[in-house]
Amino acid sequence: MVAKQEIKFFIISDSVGETALNIAKAALAQFTDVSPVYFRFPFTKTEERLDVVLKQAREKQPIIIHTLVTAGLSHKINQFAKENKLVCYDLLNPIMSEIVKRSGEQPRGEAGAIHRLNDRYFDRISAMEFAVMYDDGKDPQGFLEADIVLLGVSRTSKTPLSLFLANRNLKVANLPLVPSAHIPGQLWKVDPKKIIGLTTDIAVLNNFRRERMIAYGLNPNTAYSDTKQITEELNYASQLYQKIGCYVVNTAHRSIEETATLILEHLDLDNYGSPKP
Amino acid sequence: MVAKQEIKFFIISDSVGETALNIAKAALAQFTDVSPVYFRFPFTKTEERLDVVLKQAREKQPIIIHTLVTAGLSHKINQFAKENKLVCYDLLNPIMSEIVKRSGEQPRGEAGAIHRLNDRYFDRISAMEFAVMYDDGKDPQGFLEADIVLLGVSRTSKTPLSLFLANRNLKVANLPLVPSAHIPGQLWKVDPKKIIGLTTDIAVLNNFRRERMIAYGLNPNTAYSDTKQITEELNYASQLYQKIGCYVVNTAHRSIEETATLILEHLDLDNYGSPKP
Repeated sequence: MVAKQEIKFFIISDSVGETALNIAKAALAQFTDVSPVYFRFPFTKTEERLDVVLKQAREKQPIIIHTLVTAGLSHKINQFAKENKLVCYDLLNPIMSEIVKRSGEQPRGEAGAIHRLNDRYFDRISAMEFAVMYDDGKDPQGFLEADIVLLGVSRTSKTPLSLFLANRNLKVANLPLVPSAHIPGQLWKVDPKKIIGLTTDIAVLNNFRRERMIAYGLNPNTAYSDTKQITEELNYASQLYQKIGCYVVNTAHRSIEETATLILEHLDLDNYGSPKP
Repeated sequence: MVAKQEIKFFIISDSVGETALNIAKAALAQFTDVSPVYFRFPFTKTEERLDVVLKQAREKQPIIIHTLVTAGLSHKINQFAKENKLVCYDLLNPIMSEIVKRSGEQPRGEAGAIHRLNDRYFDRISAMEFAVMYDDGKDPQGFLEADIVLLGVSRTSKTPLSLFLANRNLKVANLPLVPSAHIPGQLWKVDPKKIIGLTTDIAVLNNFRRERMIAYGLNPNTAYSDTKQITEELNYASQLYQKIGCYVVNTAHRSIEETATLILEHLDLDNYGSPKP
């Protein structure tokens, strides 16, 4: 086997550096034989701290990706990279310049502004607490307060999807579907538009459930992973979805992000859980 | 009041478009008087779909931010923007070109590669389920399996922080601290390095709790929001943290992202919850 090509990345931010790292990861995902080494420098808010980083950059010759907005620092790093022939991507300042051009407003040059603790931020925290409180059908009362109610048989990603949507400020409750179990009466009082039915493929579900049994140290060949039972469960769910008249998403080959985006698109909501323009 | 300057953004991706949107939001956070209107075009994977978007772009003259990686599409949009003098930021291809230069490998040109369902992805889902299962001290058995145990009095962001760290593949359990309540014996069996004590400022906590009471339709002036009681609770927590010898973070003026980054830095973990290079 040929060794993977190692490429060093410097992820520099005056805030947490999440955005820059995600950009690096998205670019990297296009390569199979490259092994990235990430050096993260969050909270780089002073010239002194930046100087230390730049010195290391000159030694290691990494690909630099930064989201510095602190006045002076972004200019400094870009200038340093130019003089020292370092590869450096400035993700925010070109876009900020265009915004200045269009609005006439000068940027505040304040690190971490995106994380400032505003109302939207506190709504998001409430939404996350809501998702935890009303996960797994714990309290059907939640259906009536929820923005979205997710239905699905076991292992159709209800919990992570609820949390992901909570991160978009949406109050999400979910209910696991089991053919023999009672459907709480509250569900029928919910606007069907708010209900999303999750489904998946038999083979995928079978595989998931076998793995879960193995993870629990149990025999993978139980009724839980039995193809016949899975088929019955999925049919039961499908009939219920038809009766409700709700939107159905197959999560079989989709990531949480992809499923969540489909749901937001379906509800005509933007990324903050607000109606689209 | 002067009306805010409206600026249109086209967020175009052949995957979900999360990364491009975050870049736009981070740039926007630097401006107070600009009102962004986001038009999102996720899953733009075909020339036909892109043509529709480009036609709209010519009309609306937005700031275009894209993360297209599908072979052909990124070239097409960049070319179109040039010919029609549209403002267009290509976030990934310049970085991908540099990776090609360093590795000699050609990109796969496959949309959504970052969301492919690998082991790491399933670990993340397990971590999220773990966080929900062991939230709020529900089952102290979780402390023994957790990568991180968060302690804190009510309203110190334990739940959202647990979920955020779960997104980094870390198994997190949390325990609310109440002076009169019993501390589960399992806590003393946990490596103190894995324990994080959350604290906050009296005024911030008082404010939070009053708001919570108001949200519940209750009188905000209860013992729960009483400054004297809050001081006692925080002192109790502080003494416990000293006894355990754990790392302490004040969450008073920090966002979840910032607190989480401090914790990851303290534990010398990278963004995947793995040891740093």
